[in-house]
Amino acid sequence: MQIAEPLLKAIEELSKLPGIGRKTAQRLALFMLKTNDEDVQKLVNALLELKTKIHFCSKCYNLAVDDLCEICQNPKRDQGILCVVEEASDVIAIEKTNEFNGLYHVIGGILSPLSGVGPEDLRIKELIRRFEYETINEVILALNADTEGETTSLYLARLIKPLVSKVTRIARGLPIGGDLEFADEATIGRAMLSRNLL
Amino acid sequence: MQIAEPLLKAIEELSKLPGIGRKTAQRLALFMLKTNDEDVQKLVNALLELKTKIHFCSKCYNLAVDDLCEICQNPKRDQGILCVVEEASDVIAIEKTNEFNGLYHVIGGILSPLSGVGPEDLRIKELIRRFEYETINEVILALNADTEGETTSLYLARLIKPLVSKVTRIARGLPIGGDLEFADEATIGRAMLSRNLL
Repeated sequence: MQIAEPLLKAIEELSKLPGIGRKTAQRLALFMLKTNDEDVQKLVNALLELKTKIHFCSKCYNLAVDDLCEICQNPKRDQGILCVVEEASDVIAIEKTNEFNGLYHVIGGILSPLSGVGPEDLRIKELIRRFEYETINEVILALNADTEGETTSLYLARLIKPLVSKVTRIARGLPIGGDLEFADEATIGRAMLSRNLL
Repeated sequence: MQIAEPLLKAIEELSKLPGIGRKTAQRLALFMLKTNDEDVQKLVNALLELKTKIHFCSKCYNLAVDDLCEICQNPKRDQGILCVVEEASDVIAIEKTNEFNGLYHVIGGILSPLSGVGPEDLRIKELIRRFEYETINEVILALNADTEGETTSLYLARLIKPLVSKVTRIARGLPIGGDLEFADEATIGRAMLSRNLL
């Protein structure tokens, strides 16, 4: 038996999503066949609205419904601190902490020579241009703590340092609740180096 | 910052899917924001076609594009053997083995008093009715090998035995490639009991 064409197609499209393999895609497609039409229509509408109503903020490239995102529109945010992140999902993660009240700049990826991602593929030009018309006192680099995040941070720091008095980077060390015994050597080593005075 | 409404809605709808938690739903929604419009449209179309073009076979309740599914339509299949399975996905799994050439009956679930699923919620009446107009020599019960599958198999066997000369059930034992040492006691016990003469 061949799997029916419409089912095959749905499985194919679903398995293009990140983290969804062929088996999961089949399970999702079969689930939708069992679901009532209305619920599938709701999902479809939500996806279409997502694409039509949300775009990137023209200033910081965070997700926005209007031309500027909610954060850039908010006069209460500290306009003098700029936090550079990789993706819009990082903005959501940092906002959840309630520890940051400045503005963001989403560069939209990470430098990766192996995947062919160079500086021109990221929104780095757009970041540099912000210094021309904004008064920024501090830039916080909040990229991932892996090799590529490291490289990109160093690259950005070199570019930005002539433009702003303070360039910082989020701390790396033992995660909260983390067990020293189970932490890897690189993390422990970094935690030792970056120790704080009590 | 509030997450933008259309994003929130997409996350909500996606997290209704089985095995998709809130975090995965957010990752999928953000992925779709980055994907070009055309690809999202393709996915949406595939899902809508899935719902409009595929329905349940009027005879065996397998997935079908026409009134009858491909298997029920095929005159080369052995019309005398009926394999009872829980879901359409089980038909796909069994068809992949190329070991079965009869017909199917998809009951659409499993008896589960705890979840409130009784015989009237499954396509058991429809199964019984098939014996009136089809000449069936053997019914193979191919339900899952867990407690609920067990219970449902025994329930069905009692119902069907007066109607057909042979009611069988797929073997339970050590999975192929399975290591005796790592198999659970219930499986080893069953494999011992159901041992075959060489």
